[in-house]
Amino acid sequence: MNTTEVRIVEVGARDGLQNEKTLLPADVKIALIDRLSSTGLKTIEATSFVSPKWVPQLADAAEVFRGIRKVPGVSYPVLVPNEQGYQRARDVGATEIAVFTAASEAFNQKNIHASIDESIERFIPVLERAKADGVKVRGYVSTVLGCPYQGDVPVGDVVRVARRLYELGCYEVSLGDTIGVGTPAKARAMLHAVAQELPISALAVHFHDTYGQALANILACLDEGVRVVDSSVSGTGGCPYAKGATGNVASEDVVYMLHGMGVHTGIDLDLLIATGAWLAAQLHKETASRVTKARTAV
Amino acid sequence: MNTTEVRIVEVGARDGLQNEKTLLPADVKIALIDRLSSTGLKTIEATSFVSPKWVPQLADAAEVFRGIRKVPGVSYPVLVPNEQGYQRARDVGATEIAVFTAASEAFNQKNIHASIDESIERFIPVLERAKADGVKVRGYVSTVLGCPYQGDVPVGDVVRVARRLYELGCYEVSLGDTIGVGTPAKARAMLHAVAQELPISALAVHFHDTYGQALANILACLDEGVRVVDSSVSGTGGCPYAKGATGNVASEDVVYMLHGMGVHTGIDLDLLIATGAWLAAQLHKETASRVTKARTAV
Repeated sequence: MNTTEVRIVEVGARDGLQNEKTLLPADVKIALIDRLSSTGLKTIEATSFVSPKWVPQLADAAEVFRGIRKVPGVSYPVLVPNEQGYQRARDVGATEIAVFTAASEAFNQKNIHASIDESIERFIPVLERAKADGVKVRGYVSTVLGCPYQGDVPVGDVVRVARRLYELGCYEVSLGDTIGVGTPAKARAMLHAVAQELPISALAVHFHDTYGQALANILACLDEGVRVVDSSVSGTGGCPYAKGATGNVASEDVVYMLHGMGVHTGIDLDLLIATGAWLAAQLHKETASRVTKARTAV
Repeated sequence: MNTTEVRIVEVGARDGLQNEKTLLPADVKIALIDRLSSTGLKTIEATSFVSPKWVPQLADAAEVFRGIRKVPGVSYPVLVPNEQGYQRARDVGATEIAVFTAASEAFNQKNIHASIDESIERFIPVLERAKADGVKVRGYVSTVLGCPYQGDVPVGDVVRVARRLYELGCYEVSLGDTIGVGTPAKARAMLHAVAQELPISALAVHFHDTYGQALANILACLDEGVRVVDSSVSGTGGCPYAKGATGNVASEDVVYMLHGMGVHTGIDLDLLIATGAWLAAQLHKETASRVTKARTAV
């Protein structure tokens, strides 16, 4: 691999916390995001403007977004499911949003009772308003390497959905192995197929470590040319489809690997480890970061 | 990576158990090894004929080795530190042994109060007897990517030690990242350097997952051409230099990755998972295999 720079998209405060049972008060979330921005991270997903009924953990989205210190040069995307969410996000000054769909028909049907195409249609008004407002949009495609309901997901479906999000104006499309079943050769082949249709510079990878494969998958995708990696500090966030299993890959472990390979991330790993350890204490759980476990073991 | 076959060297019954505090009775160890051979594994490190004073867990080496069912086509190497150990191993019929040293001067001094060269000299009589007896010898080189005492380990030292073991008659040299600090580019560069001096078909890699890097390192080394991987069922074995941290990479997770990549191992993954879960229960600890955790999570 010949690369000097990788951008980490830190998703712990949204994708991570959304799957944590311990409810954190808004001031702790604000402290988390402020700590994260002090590590040198340039993209920190801050919260989600979904209905509080769906995700009670993030019911305080407006308060959190208002409360965080906006560091110049750092993006704070927020998840937005529909126009109401978009309006709430804009009301507090969000300048970057994220939208999400799945590459699996069965997953979309189970989760939002819509087909893939319908799910994309639903956020076209959001994308149109974002374009008019000069708001950047990141797109998530989940279940790119497997689905808890339909099993295998055809690569062609991943390509189609990713291309559609890109055509609709997403500056970056994050390809997510939601259930963590993927292995390196499949991950790389999937990325390769998508990169035939849209620029690899517009792609990110998002791996869950449920089967312990996340770093190997990231390595394979770096070899394929991706330069943006989603991860979650302290590995925050479980796997909603396998309770007790690990969810998002830990940012600390990704950064440790990258720095060990001579790749520049702009992140202070020691500060990131300290932030992850602090968050784990707030959540009353053991960190899922191997690096942090190794560093703090005696 | 273009490969169809990888051989897993299962080290759980020796390298793994040696670092576990819970003492297992001989009949449980025998059951473990017999279960492992039923999975299709072709190389199963069985025990160690070191002094029982050093490793109380393996004081029953002779009883265990005598008790296991010797499946035709399966190798059961045993660790041997010196001529006394060799004699004990031969007395119970061992036909393959393993010897070990470190690539780090500081590590050898701390552990056996000898230089690298002295440590190698010490087992030359063992290697001579093995050659005369037609006994196969596997060589371990530890601390190939870092040392708990001296930190960095020069690649030249790894190359020199590996070459010496090979010249002395080891049919295979296993390169071990004992403290698990290595990252993929360094792992690959180290392997590449060693492979300039001896055939890559005579090399194995042995990663500890202390920093979560093991599978990524294995992937990088597979790309470099290695086809033999050491691992430990259920990730058995802690890290003696970072208590509470993970040790050996779990065989289940390695096999899951390999099978997902279309690589043939000859191993029945379901049987391996069942064996690891059973062993974890015997040790009264949670499995360190992510795959097993994900499969058994509800």
